[in-house]
Amino acid sequence: MAISELRFDLVSKDWVVIATGRGRRPDTFARKEVPVVESIVADCPFCQIETQETAVLVKTKQGHITQIKNNQEIAKLNWSFVVAPNKYPAFGQAQDLNERAVGPYQIMDGVGFHEVVIYRDHQRQLADFSIEETMDFIDVLQQRYLALMDKEFINYISIFHNQGKEAGASVTHPHSQIIAIPVIDPDLRRSMEGSQRYFNLNHQCVHCTMMKWDLESGDRVVFENDQFVVLVPFASRVSFEMRIYPKEHKSYFERITDQEIRSLAEALKQALSRLAKKLNNPAYNFFIHTAPCDSKDYDHYHWHFEILPKTSTWAGFELGTGIEILTIAPEQAAGFLRA
Amino acid sequence: MAISELRFDLVSKDWVVIATGRGRRPDTFARKEVPVVESIVADCPFCQIETQETAVLVKTKQGHITQIKNNQEIAKLNWSFVVAPNKYPAFGQAQDLNERAVGPYQIMDGVGFHEVVIYRDHQRQLADFSIEETMDFIDVLQQRYLALMDKEFINYISIFHNQGKEAGASVTHPHSQIIAIPVIDPDLRRSMEGSQRYFNLNHQCVHCTMMKWDLESGDRVVFENDQFVVLVPFASRVSFEMRIYPKEHKSYFERITDQEIRSLAEALKQALSRLAKKLNNPAYNFFIHTAPCDSKDYDHYHWHFEILPKTSTWAGFELGTGIEILTIAPEQAAGFLRA
Repeated sequence: MAISELRFDLVSKDWVVIATGRGRRPDTFARKEVPVVESIVADCPFCQIETQETAVLVKTKQGHITQIKNNQEIAKLNWSFVVAPNKYPAFGQAQDLNERAVGPYQIMDGVGFHEVVIYRDHQRQLADFSIEETMDFIDVLQQRYLALMDKEFINYISIFHNQGKEAGASVTHPHSQIIAIPVIDPDLRRSMEGSQRYFNLNHQCVHCTMMKWDLESGDRVVFENDQFVVLVPFASRVSFEMRIYPKEHKSYFERITDQEIRSLAEALKQALSRLAKKLNNPAYNFFIHTAPCDSKDYDHYHWHFEILPKTSTWAGFELGTGIEILTIAPEQAAGFLRA
Repeated sequence: MAISELRFDLVSKDWVVIATGRGRRPDTFARKEVPVVESIVADCPFCQIETQETAVLVKTKQGHITQIKNNQEIAKLNWSFVVAPNKYPAFGQAQDLNERAVGPYQIMDGVGFHEVVIYRDHQRQLADFSIEETMDFIDVLQQRYLALMDKEFINYISIFHNQGKEAGASVTHPHSQIIAIPVIDPDLRRSMEGSQRYFNLNHQCVHCTMMKWDLESGDRVVFENDQFVVLVPFASRVSFEMRIYPKEHKSYFERITDQEIRSLAEALKQALSRLAKKLNNPAYNFFIHTAPCDSKDYDHYHWHFEILPKTSTWAGFELGTGIEILTIAPEQAAGFLRA
């Protein structure tokens, strides 16, 4: 019997190794100790957003996003989320990109937007939200996406979430982030090209093909409703990775309908609460992969969420080769999360 | 003034963001507490290699590698390194690759070799080695590379080192690893193609071009001797990243000469001991990037070491876009390591 299996990712064309030789049971991946989160943190910048002076956007419960000039007004509102500029942004506004050559290299200014989506309660994570609150969250993301995508120099918008110190969250208070940037990373471009290439060759979407096979076999499906499916990908990049796909072929997250938002909220809540429960609140990252907003045609693409729990560390082999080693089979991980 | 700078990597064609807005001084990246390593660890598998039953290779001090049938013989030798098969290998030997289709996917067995290079002393890290000991280490790597490269199904050999739990080291005892695999990851293939493309276009090696510019400006050079240079790359992937390049254009690590081994040992010792001293023994990974051993021509490639200290965590943005955010400029990192 072979020691491991090499699986080829149809989109990225990367290899992953499934090496289950240590025979670890799924529950041994659970977090041992969960750090205690204080209920009120005197120096938490996000708990004090009501008294800060940055102009922010406020989302009231099941209401719209409104611009607030004087932050003291926030306290009067029954708010669920505040969108504020990141205090230490990686990208900022400018008149032009200032592209130039330095020695043999090409550089440009980091022009763009870097926003934080602050959740109201210091202690309530996304997994604890009701369906209505999760719908509010998705609505905020969509509204900010729509507002940022037409700004000058913006070609890609990354929506992501870091939960827990091990996943790179520097502030404990629950929050997500939105970064709008002028470049499309070649990695992303290649994903788009991979999807395009498969479409040209097979006259169908590569994600639809993978999802159809996953839904037929059922082995890697964690949850599904009418419009969305939560699955552990056949060629996962990390143990217990999950993806959320719209079942119908859709390329652009920002075009999601109100009815789809409800189904997505249910799928997202299922994915995150199963993760929290089964793996004892692990650190994790999630992000949305959606077609770039650079006015090109990406109708072949299929937008989705990727959820990456932090149950191990990429080490020298992964960093040096780009090949990831998984110590639990995706089918086993899915069975454990589904149960 | 721009908030950040986007730098384009000439080989991988990736973007990195240099965002120094928080104005962190280099010394704030130093590790706060260093875990205590017990001098004798009763259940350390590598301390007990002399009494284990696996057939291993032994490298005596400034001597050759010899196969040992009975491990009790090891104790009689003045040994510096033992090369043993990994107890939980990610790849193993087989008669064929057993390539097959599963649904829309392509898979194969994980055929290959997974070895550990065990250092003699539980408490002495690579950075603590003398030049002679470091030469012994490089000699072991070269000998194993040469022995594995001609084995059936082997097309790429990854030599890497994980130091510290945060960098993925599951065993505390100092050791490096060698994995010989049947596939060349598309990431690597693209690096090779990037190097080839630059060569075809400019009739010179892209690494030579970058290094020449770095040596002229001096800003990012940490150390150099006659044959090797240690530098912080202009488009670093992580803060305090270092690379070690042979100054002359060389494509194949395994062809290193005895005289070059001495110069490389000096450069490696400089790099690792500066890292240990300046950043208080941080966790780190290093690996060798060298031309694949699949019998194709890679004369355009330029082999090198990449050393990646673990001073931060890749979070949602990095994972979702492949674009890394650095909070210290490579020039500042190099100045700090050089001083």
